[in-house]
Amino acid sequence: MRFKISPRGSMSLLSQLEINRLQQSSDEQLYRLFRNCCLAVLNAGSNTDSSEEIFEKYKDFDVNVIKCERGVQLELVNPPAEAFVDGKLIAGMQELVEAVLRDILFTGERYNAQTLDSADTHTLTHVVFDILRNAQVVQPNLDPNVIVCWGGHSINEVEYKYTKEVGYQLGLRSLNICTGCGPGAMKGPMKGATIGHAKQRIVDGRYLGFTEPGIIAAEPPNPIVNELVILPDIEKRLEAFVRCAHGIVIFPGGAGTAEELLYILGILMHPNNQRQVLPIILTGPESSRGYFEAIDDFIAETLGHEARKLYQIIIADPATVAKTMTQGAQAVKEYRRDTGDSYCFNWTLHIDEAFQRPFVPNHDNVRNLNLHRDQEPQALAADLRRAFSAIVAGNVKDDGIRAIRKHGVFEIHGERDMMKKLDVLLRAFVEQSRMKLPGSVYHPCYRVITD
Amino acid sequence: MRFKISPRGSMSLLSQLEINRLQQSSDEQLYRLFRNCCLAVLNAGSNTDSSEEIFEKYKDFDVNVIKCERGVQLELVNPPAEAFVDGKLIAGMQELVEAVLRDILFTGERYNAQTLDSADTHTLTHVVFDILRNAQVVQPNLDPNVIVCWGGHSINEVEYKYTKEVGYQLGLRSLNICTGCGPGAMKGPMKGATIGHAKQRIVDGRYLGFTEPGIIAAEPPNPIVNELVILPDIEKRLEAFVRCAHGIVIFPGGAGTAEELLYILGILMHPNNQRQVLPIILTGPESSRGYFEAIDDFIAETLGHEARKLYQIIIADPATVAKTMTQGAQAVKEYRRDTGDSYCFNWTLHIDEAFQRPFVPNHDNVRNLNLHRDQEPQALAADLRRAFSAIVAGNVKDDGIRAIRKHGVFEIHGERDMMKKLDVLLRAFVEQSRMKLPGSVYHPCYRVITD
Amino acid sequence: MRFKISPRGSMSLLSQLEINRLQQSSDEQLYRLFRNCCLAVLNAGSNTDSSEEIFEKYKDFDVNVIKCERGVQLELVNPPAEAFVDGKLIAGMQELVEAVLRDILFTGERYNAQTLDSADTHTLTHVVFDILRNAQVVQPNLDPNVIVCWGGHSINEVEYKYTKEVGYQLGLRSLNICTGCGPGAMKGPMKGATIGHAKQRIVDGRYLGFTEPGIIAAEPPNPIVNELVILPDIEKRLEAFVRCAHGIVIFPGGAGTAEELLYILGILMHPNNQRQVLPIILTGPESSRGYFEAIDDFIAETLGHEARKLYQIIIADPATVAKTMTQGAQAVKEYRRDTGDSYCFNWTLHIDEAFQRPFVPNHDNVRNLNLHRDQEPQALAADLRRAFSAIVAGNVKDDGIRAIRKHGVFEIHGERDMMKKLDVLLRAFVEQSRMKLPGSVYHPCYRVITD
Amino acid sequence: MRFKISPRGSMSLLSQLEINRLQQSSDEQLYRLFRNCCLAVLNAGSNTDSSEEIFEKYKDFDVNVIKCERGVQLELVNPPAEAFVDGKLIAGMQELVEAVLRDILFTGERYNAQTLDSADTHTLTHVVFDILRNAQVVQPNLDPNVIVCWGGHSINEVEYKYTKEVGYQLGLRSLNICTGCGPGAMKGPMKGATIGHAKQRIVDGRYLGFTEPGIIAAEPPNPIVNELVILPDIEKRLEAFVRCAHGIVIFPGGAGTAEELLYILGILMHPNNQRQVLPIILTGPESSRGYFEAIDDFIAETLGHEARKLYQIIIADPATVAKTMTQGAQAVKEYRRDTGDSYCFNWTLHIDEAFQRPFVPNHDNVRNLNLHRDQEPQALAADLRRAFSAIVAGNVKDDGIRAIRKHGVFEIHGERDMMKKLDVLLRAFVEQSRMKLPGSVYHPCYRVITD
Repeated sequence: MRFKISPRGSMSLLSQLEINRLQQSSDEQLYRLFRNCCLAVLNAGSNTDSSEEIFEKYKDFDVNVIKCERGVQLELVNPPAEAFVDGKLIAGMQELVEAVLRDILFTGERYNAQTLDSADTHTLTHVVFDILRNAQVVQPNLDPNVIVCWGGHSINEVEYKYTKEVGYQLGLRSLNICTGCGPGAMKGPMKGATIGHAKQRIVDGRYLGFTEPGIIAAEPPNPIVNELVILPDIEKRLEAFVRCAHGIVIFPGGAGTAEELLYILGILMHPNNQRQVLPIILTGPESSRGYFEAIDDFIAETLGHEARKLYQIIIADPATVAKTMTQGAQAVKEYRRDTGDSYCFNWTLHIDEAFQRPFVPNHDNVRNLNLHRDQEPQALAADLRRAFSAIVAGNVKDDGIRAIRKHGVFEIHGERDMMKKLDVLLRAFVEQSRMKLPGSVYHPCYRVITD
Repeated sequence: MRFKISPRGSMSLLSQLEINRLQQSSDEQLYRLFRNCCLAVLNAGSNTDSSEEIFEKYKDFDVNVIKCERGVQLELVNPPAEAFVDGKLIAGMQELVEAVLRDILFTGERYNAQTLDSADTHTLTHVVFDILRNAQVVQPNLDPNVIVCWGGHSINEVEYKYTKEVGYQLGLRSLNICTGCGPGAMKGPMKGATIGHAKQRIVDGRYLGFTEPGIIAAEPPNPIVNELVILPDIEKRLEAFVRCAHGIVIFPGGAGTAEELLYILGILMHPNNQRQVLPIILTGPESSRGYFEAIDDFIAETLGHEARKLYQIIIADPATVAKTMTQGAQAVKEYRRDTGDSYCFNWTLHIDEAFQRPFVPNHDNVRNLNLHRDQEPQALAADLRRAFSAIVAGNVKDDGIRAIRKHGVFEIHGERDMMKKLDVLLRAFVEQSRMKLPGSVYHPCYRVITD
Repeated sequence: MRFKISPRGSMSLLSQLEINRLQQSSDEQLYRLFRNCCLAVLNAGSNTDSSEEIFEKYKDFDVNVIKCERGVQLELVNPPAEAFVDGKLIAGMQELVEAVLRDILFTGERYNAQTLDSADTHTLTHVVFDILRNAQVVQPNLDPNVIVCWGGHSINEVEYKYTKEVGYQLGLRSLNICTGCGPGAMKGPMKGATIGHAKQRIVDGRYLGFTEPGIIAAEPPNPIVNELVILPDIEKRLEAFVRCAHGIVIFPGGAGTAEELLYILGILMHPNNQRQVLPIILTGPESSRGYFEAIDDFIAETLGHEARKLYQIIIADPATVAKTMTQGAQAVKEYRRDTGDSYCFNWTLHIDEAFQRPFVPNHDNVRNLNLHRDQEPQALAADLRRAFSAIVAGNVKDDGIRAIRKHGVFEIHGERDMMKKLDVLLRAFVEQSRMKLPGSVYHPCYRVITD
Repeated sequence: MRFKISPRGSMSLLSQLEINRLQQSSDEQLYRLFRNCCLAVLNAGSNTDSSEEIFEKYKDFDVNVIKCERGVQLELVNPPAEAFVDGKLIAGMQELVEAVLRDILFTGERYNAQTLDSADTHTLTHVVFDILRNAQVVQPNLDPNVIVCWGGHSINEVEYKYTKEVGYQLGLRSLNICTGCGPGAMKGPMKGATIGHAKQRIVDGRYLGFTEPGIIAAEPPNPIVNELVILPDIEKRLEAFVRCAHGIVIFPGGAGTAEELLYILGILMHPNNQRQVLPIILTGPESSRGYFEAIDDFIAETLGHEARKLYQIIIADPATVAKTMTQGAQAVKEYRRDTGDSYCFNWTLHIDEAFQRPFVPNHDNVRNLNLHRDQEPQALAADLRRAFSAIVAGNVKDDGIRAIRKHGVFEIHGERDMMKKLDVLLRAFVEQSRMKLPGSVYHPCYRVITD
């Protein structure tokens, strides 16, 4: 079955030169990525975190970029039937496919690996901004109301319901939701906000999904996402999150969530960010109280007590979470107005290159992380962040999984006390099924080693 | 706690004369009705079908109409806390309250009991049209896409999920939903359609709720309803349904659903409506196959086999239901264009006065129903419809419940065979908990008597 | 040539009952009025103030109201060719014709002569409001920005250019224009405002034209008018002007302009209106300085020096006129907010019945006017207003012209001094060609007689 | 007097990197250009074609680009008072200034002289497209309705009125206007279309002005222009015109108009464009009949009779011009649909590099033009086009005027017959005051020399 679509948004206005470039892109790797991402978004809403499973199921899927005078067309070959209604592609699916075309092929060509490798910190931020602007995520005349929600893709039913409840309370207060766009804690808040927005008769609610090529198949965008952006790597994705956020809510999660928390704490602890205003709340149902205590403890032990002042923990109280975020977003607005900063992109937030440069999670790099307290806490945060990033890669990202298969598990070395804490934390994640969706037995992709 | 709201839509543009009339309305009964309906909609989303419970819980609730130069204000005294977020009335709630003001006080004053009693059939239809137009439900330039969904307020989980699935498939096909606006089969299709609309990026989806003063508290509008209309009585409500419908889906239900089915069949069997185009589908999950067979049987026995041609039964196939409705709505459009009829209000549908005149469900009227086959089938349908209407009243409507308490159960007389069939059907309704929400023991409000 | 149009706005949603009433309207006089008004608006933009000329030229024009299920259609028979482009009616023309259908046939049927004769002052105001609301001229959520511009339909080139300049300056300040919708000073401000709005990128500029059946053919709406309302008579038209106005600009003019000035002064001088805020400016080019001095003088002599405080005279300074109106409209907003009055309809303005009751300008009524200073100034203003009203009728209104032909000129009796002043003023109007468009010799329709 | 403005459209979303580049732009020449263009647009609506006059009058005008976190601000120093109302910059003026910022500084930096010099034909077209896309002139989902109107900036009153009448008839038919955005025939059609659009209730009428840095001061955009684009040079401006056009109307004009006509004829005569659909009409009032006969003659003599088939001449019939354009635009739509070409940018039109490469109008280049018939007609058209281009430069462009002052008049050599024809034509232009606005004596900047 073949199906042609004509892009309708910004991708419908390309010059012949741009179309030629798109089509002649002989970069097979880029094309493969494009094909996989298309497949991933056409599976939006499916319940799996195994990209292999998806790729296996739709082996004969393909997508062709066809040039015509008027622009490009995409030809989908054997696409998943669920993406269609009575022979027509669902409008939301078409939007997602167009986002892939835009962010992978079009932007990907402009910002290729070489360009990015040689870029300085200002250029890296410019790239993040440019991608978001091109996706019309940053726009003039918007009020600060984007709440970034982080949390595991694999959470239990009680936790999931809780994320919906928080989303509902946020939506009732006209706040918008931005997540990593997969299932679990990335979907719940959006679902809840949909109802909250509906009750408040808000028809232009925003459900932003920021993802990356390496993870999009394992965490295909849920069907509520109406603004999808695919950032080139986890570092740019994280930068996009924190520069767009007017508040961050962190739900229970696994290694990815820990990575995110360490990322933002590491940044906010930088002396240049002392006056930054950015409300952060860790929240979950009563049953997750122990979980957050463990996280809180781990932060205190590793980054010190100062780090704990950067967030609040609120247990089992969605309305208070939302109320606090409303006030927080108001404070953000005032801060931005006072500093003359943009409402839609936090330019004044200082992000060290250590947090910007892509970390390649291979065995050498993991082994060489410096996990000792004899350094600035933000430097430690940067390497701890990388450790968790490696675990995520080993769990669900294609490259990581292959590396583990080939070379065995990652070895994470570090200071004795810290490693013990880390080990406890990771074990808890495994026990609580936070590493992978239930149904499969989890085989750890790492080993914690005390120096 | 007191809270003032200023109407924002059509009710914000009243003349001083109209404001005076509103305020001076010394008609205590009308005012009481207004107060009760306000309370009912402020409870939108609550899970109960007992108006008594609601009224008991909010005994000290009140609402005042306050005149000011600029228009009227409503003062809510001790309203339910759930209707508010951080001290502000939820926008959707405000819309519902304004609908009550418009339909009960403002329209109620214009079309009072005396006016209506003396009205002829054309005027009765005009009244229904005028109320819908005033509520902006009928509008120029809309395509035929309103699917009326009927079905029980008390259905089981499997059935409820099925109604959501059908709504989802309808929504994916850009169809809008109109129901009686309570829980169960009146809520499920709207919830489903919300997701379908979201996936198709439809932001102006319509969720029409047609209710009546006597039932609004027992079946408060679910929170998705974004166009609420309160018709004066069940007869006008039914006329509103069938004149606005471009297709009708009937889910499993109890006495109310049977009433609705008999109403539309009785009308369509009239010779003047032979060429009418109006797709009707009875549908439910596999488990409801028996239910529909029983209904189908009952129709055949009472109204004859011709009546069965007016509807299809589709079991466990939401996509086919929706596809059929899409084609049906297209056929309706062509029929309307050919006959020069309006797309938004079916003027060519002939409705006999027997179906328009309010039936007062008291003991005498019920006893005097003519339930014999020695008459035109549409006449029999009219009286059967009244029998079921009386049962609904006895089950959940205030007046009916009080009448039953005072005078004992209704006695439904009729032809032997038919009464037997009826008895079987009603028993099944009771057994399947279709009469009242589970949690309470159901005491029948009727007795079937064979002549 | 026959041309059918289907109404598109509010007139496209009529019930069968309403359509029947429209069509069966056997009231031949109403129908004749409808036909004439349709013809008048289809001539929008033509340059004549002789209705006879128009009616003569299009003797074979006719318009039929055709009933169909979906609503009504209008069939135009032999309409003016200028109203069409390549066989299609110009959109603006269609709007004007629909306004006539709405205000003459539909509203005319509701508010017929009998209804209006027996109405009290509150009802009369309600009628004006209801007509304006029905025409969507009064709307919620509009800022006070309607500047009513009065002035002659027959003014010279210098004056006309000046009215355009004032309109331009008003438009630059986001103010909207409301006039009597004919040529001259009723057209210039709209033309100017169009350019001002365009420069400020205002796309929803409002150009309100309030007219009456008796004068619409003599002063057909200019083509810029995008909201036309036909009020039943000059008294309701004047009430519409002053209740909608957030500021009034008076340009040079003839008897009609004098009538308007006396009307608003008579009202504002009423003790109940002492605290009213309504900026009034008399303005014109340098060459009209003498004209305004004469008017100012006449007011002082007749209504007293207090009356002069109610307006300012600004000569040859359009920017200052507009700046003053901007500030004035702001003051109006504050006053309305403080008194809780509507922004779009001045409910708190007290208008005596003397100014509301239609004055029939026949010979008896004119002769019996009390033009003496032995009464309250507002009472004198009322009768002076009527005197000018009679002259307008004798000049350009059908009924008036016929009455003059039959019974000779009107005799205006009054106190010696005042009559002298009046005579001087009227002579000046004649000399300055303010009574009729140039090209015809003006024969006065009145005689001033000293008691 | 200093006045700050914050860009509101696309220029409000710049990255820090882009802002730095903008601000640090040490390219003094670019900055000077920016300043001059700002001054020119702030004079929009003034009546002069002397840039010197404007620059002299506002010697102390300046504009600063100020960086702030949120974006850039522009500080205007001593701007023309006419651009302000009560201390606020007129919205349309702000848009024009933003267009200058966008097209001169921002785009100018991207596409600087070096980039453009080394570009191939595809890249040159891409640049034109990119500039238009960036200005949102090319957009998806627009119907073909852009009528390019060419003609002199200095035309007489009768001709001017005629251009308005044609614009009015085009506007009545929902067509939009694109011109070189100066006075005369570039303003008239826009003014007329404004009225036509208003009558048809079109609120999103487009008034496109394509200009170039070298001429913007001499022909400042008229105040109706709501989409201003500044192309880098006359060649890109001409390419923009013909690729955006769905029809071209040519009014009487001088050297510039002749240049435009030769440009489009030269292109359409290329074999590759044989199947192109692009209606071209030469039109003017009765009094311009001779003018068009002379042009027609000149074309026949130089490019041959085939060239005459590419256009129609219609005298004194605005309605027919507009009707023909309506049909032509419809044919364009069908052609584009059949060839799969874009509706908003004519990609299939082949433009030879001879028409794309900037022609520098210096004495050597003019002397070396090949004005003989021993070549392909499109090649001759290219050089004839250049000859006229040089005259325009010598008449009104800064560089040209200075070159003439320094080195004397341009010498145009060529074949005897053709030169004679040319001389006659140019003399007629001079006599008819088409070279410069009346009020100044015209000193020819050229001499025609027969080989």
